Amino acid sequence: MGILHQEKITDQAEIQKKIDEKYMRQAILQAKKAYDLDETPIGCVIVHEGKVIGRGYNRRNTDKNPLAHAEITAIRKASRKIGDWRLEECTLYVTLEPCQMCAGAIIQSRIERVVLGCMNPKAGCAGSVLNLLDMKEFNHQVQLEIGVLGEECSALMKTFFKELRMKQKMKKKSLAE
Amino acid sequence: MGILHQEKITDQAEIQKKIDEKYMRQAILQAKKAYDLDETPIGCVIVHEGKVIGRGYNRRNTDKNPLAHAEITAIRKASRKIGDWRLEECTLYVTLEPCQMCAGAIIQSRIERVVLGCMNPKAGCAGSVLNLLDMKEFNHQVQLEIGVLGEECSALMKTFFKELRMKQKMKKKSLAE
Repeated sequence: MGILHQEKITDQAEIQKKIDEKYMRQAILQAKKAYDLDETPIGCVIVHEGKVIGRGYNRRNTDKNPLAHAEITAIRKASRKIGDWRLEECTLYVTLEPCQMCAGAIIQSRIERVVLGCMNPKAGCAGSVLNLLDMKEFNHQVQLEIGVLGEECSALMKTFFKELRMKQKMKKKSLAE
Repeated sequence: MGILHQEKITDQAEIQKKIDEKYMRQAILQAKKAYDLDETPIGCVIVHEGKVIGRGYNRRNTDKNPLAHAEITAIRKASRKIGDWRLEECTLYVTLEPCQMCAGAIIQSRIERVVLGCMNPKAGCAGSVLNLLDMKEFNHQVQLEIGVLGEECSALMKTFFKELRMKQKMKKKSLAE
């Protein structure tokens, strides 16, 4: 019985992993839209009862708007879809660990679960600099899953910044000539 | 010379106090708009070079939007006005200490100075629960002024919640009858 029970838990975990990867792939597609605009490639989807109800990608420079982060856009769209400021029973998938504003918006909208691609050691607020998603002082805490398709999310960021440095180097070179 | 210098500083502080009170009064006017909609009365204005470039008030329930906080609306409007996601050299006036999302948005938009009316001991993130506006780990820190027209801002909140409790009591009573 013990072994069967263990197998059942492993099966459930395996199914959840597949589901999480499916939606993280959609978040990565969003991140690639940012990439195509020369924006830091961060993408986000919000899922409710098996349906994507909000999508977003980073458009901060394009829109000249400090609020145009992937998560904020996805939350705005999801709450419009649901017709409520409360996004309880929703899961948010994002390719990069959220900043303090987006982690705050996740708490404010009472999102139940957050699935992260890769971490942001210098500025992330879901465990790196601090963890706003799980503070007992606030009236809401979030279930957190880290590292889903993490390598793919991280590779996207690395390629972006490598290209950015190359572009900046070439620009400097052409200015010097 | 020492006394003259001291007087000059006091004069400057007095002038700044008057300026801060002037704009906080405008933030209170915004808060009253929220009050009139039965929303928690929180208001905000953003000032750049002596001009108000963004206004906002809490519309969370009215708009069914978790992002419809006073500060977020004011930041969105100010950045549209300036045409940049950076709100450097701006001062944000808000009647109540910001939540984690709004404190985060203040950091993300690099607002130079924040002036607060009253504190929010249970949820505020500019010194109460934590202080996101002054963390050395982040790439931006904010100058903070607390308690400008604090009693007026606090009284507005207290009246609102007193009335809310009375309304809820009356509703319960009428349901019981």
